[in-house]
Order: sequence, then structure tokens, then C-alpha cells
Amino acid sequence: MDKILDPSARALLFTEARTANLFLDKPVEPKLLQEAYDLMKWGPTSMNSCPVRIVFLTTDAAKERLKPALFDGNIARVKSAPVVAVIGHDLEFFEHLPILFPHAPENKKIFENNEYATQANAFRNASLQGAYFIMAARAVGLDCGPMSGFDNGAVDKEFFGGTHIKSNFLCSLGYADESQNFPRGPRFEYNEICQVL
Amino acid sequence: MDKILDPSARALLFTEARTANLFLDKPVEPKLLQEAYDLMKWGPTSMNSCPVRIVFLTTDAAKERLKPALFDGNIARVKSAPVVAVIGHDLEFFEHLPILFPHAPENKKIFENNEYATQANAFRNASLQGAYFIMAARAVGLDCGPMSGFDNGAVDKEFFGGTHIKSNFLCSLGYADESQNFPRGPRFEYNEICQVL
Repeated sequence: MDKILDPSARALLFTEARTANLFLDKPVEPKLLQEAYDLMKWGPTSMNSCPVRIVFLTTDAAKERLKPALFDGNIARVKSAPVVAVIGHDLEFFEHLPILFPHAPENKKIFENNEYATQANAFRNASLQGAYFIMAARAVGLDCGPMSGFDNGAVDKEFFGGTHIKSNFLCSLGYADESQNFPRGPRFEYNEICQVL
Repeated sequence: MDKILDPSARALLFTEARTANLFLDKPVEPKLLQEAYDLMKWGPTSMNSCPVRIVFLTTDAAKERLKPALFDGNIARVKSAPVVAVIGHDLEFFEHLPILFPHAPENKKIFENNEYATQANAFRNASLQGAYFIMAARAVGLDCGPMSGFDNGAVDKEFFGGTHIKSNFLCSLGYADESQNFPRGPRFEYNEICQVL
């Protein structure tokens, strides 16, 4: 018999999971951040390139550094979150391919001096890893409030200066004050966006 | 007590899950594709924009249409897979925002005539949804072999002609012939790519 995910696990990750808006005043144990990473790291990426890089902001002082880059609608969420993850991608991820992808270490050359391929691979695969991270954070009992409403350039300058890392999206983390969740938005039905050929 | 994912579910989705290379000669029940979609659709996207669009190739004739666009390394995998999902994103996703995001239907205007914002939002969020799909496919018992080694322009022309949908990545689906899996690649340790501030 094939292994499948049971209904309570489906509820935790998908069917009953909700985006957090504001958070309870309850800290996040630091070990949970590593526990989530140690799950998400196993998710597949192209050539095992693993381009995601994460900065966890866990103090008021660290979150304050983010504030000037935030769109107004996200300030209260960041203020209320015990932790905010800045999820970015390293445009020089390919330097690590000889170790990460020993199967074909020469693939590093595909990306050298190819800005389009590098940018597309980093952005796509760090986004995949960001989604794995959301699922992994839920797996360890955290609620997530992902956000892309911010000035990426300002975040890059503040947190990734002097590196080849670019910000992708933010994810607030903690325990949701469920009374502050927005109503759940509708989703497309299968037949509206999926085709079977 | 907070709800967390149990070890067997963590194994199924993350710690023991492996990318499929070649597949067993065992069909995929069509209802499983919808079951996976009906899980992944609940994953969060920016403004609930849900830009992903999927074409499932389930016949030899449909897979044959993909073949000219594939890089050599992916031809055998596609041939052996009972189903290949073409995961794309609709660059006109914002036309649906008034229904998907009733909270702020005017946000549609952010994307009108803003190619950069439209492209970034579609690519980021359809990539997130693609990752949710990989997790959802595993949840319903399928093995996945995601691929980005193909000519996106050729796939767009063949499957998305006359639309604003662009291909993102491919995902072969079925039941892996585990004897044909590649050795698992190493991953970065937490401290190598995560920073805590």
C-alpha cells in the first residue's frame, strides 16, 4: 500500500492552515527555526542548487531595521511577529554546485557569465524553498504570514550589503491571534486552471 | 498543546522523500491529480493571486508534444513518467483579483501596465504554488521528478499559444522505480545559510 498523508496532517499543512495576520504575545523557541530549516532543506531544487539564504529577525532592534522598507500594510504584522524571516537567494549559488551536485559538477559553467539563467534559477528555486519553508514551519507548529509588500532594494542594502544575495519575500512567524485573521479567500476550482491532455 | 506534524508525515514529505528519476509501469489514477490540486490550492500566495496554471500530460501523444522542447537529460524521465505536469503562470492573473482578493479589489491596478511587478508576482507565486504542488503530490502518494531543463519558449508556443500563460517548470509524476534514483545530494547545514539577528 502506498503511503499517503493522513487527514489531520493535511489539515495542518493545507486545508485548515491559515495565513497569520497578527500574532499572540508568545515567543518562538529558537530551536524551532532550525527544526523547520532541517525539514525544508530536503525539498528538491534544480541540480540541488539550494539557492535560498535566510535571515531570521528575532529582536525588536533587528525588526526595526526592516521597518523603513515595509509597505504600510505590513508594519503592524511585522511589529506583532516574534520572528520575521527574510528569505533571499544567492545569485552566486552556482559556486557551490561542485559540492551540492557531484553528479555533474561541470554544470557550474552553465551559470557563469549567464545572468538570465542565474537569475531565473535562483529566483525560481529559492521561491520553491520558501514554500517548503512555509510548510516546514507549519509542520513544527508555527503560523506564517508571508509578505512581498516591501522595497526589495532597501532590504538588500540593509541585510545583504556586500554580498550577491537578493531578497525574495518575508515571512512572519509565531502563533497567530486567530481572531485577527482575514476571512479566507476563494480558490480556483480544479477545472478552472488545470487541463488534462 | 500546539499541533505539529508527526515523524511519519515528516518522512513522507521531507526527510525520506526523494526525487524520482525513472518510474514504474504503474498508472496514476486521474482523481489523484485533482486531489493534489485540492490540497495545494490552499497554500498562500500574495494577495491570494493564485497565478499558477497546470497542464497535465497523461498520454504518449501529449508527452510527444513536449519532447522537442526537452534537454536530452530529461527525455527518458518524461518517457517513463505516467503523467507530466506543465506548471505555468498567467501574466494576467491580476484580472481575477477582484474575486480572489475581495478585501482590496483595487489592487488589480498595481499590476495593470506594470510588467515588472506582474512578472515578479506571477513567477514568485506560481513557483510557491509549484512547491505546494510537489508537497501535495507526495501527500497523495505520488513521487515527483521536477525539471527545469527545457526550452520554455517552445513549451509556451506548444501548450500556451494565444494565452498570457508562460511555462515555469515541469514535474513528472508517478511511482518511482527507486532502484533508479540518484544518490541523495548533500544539503547546507543551518548555520551555513541561516543567520539569526
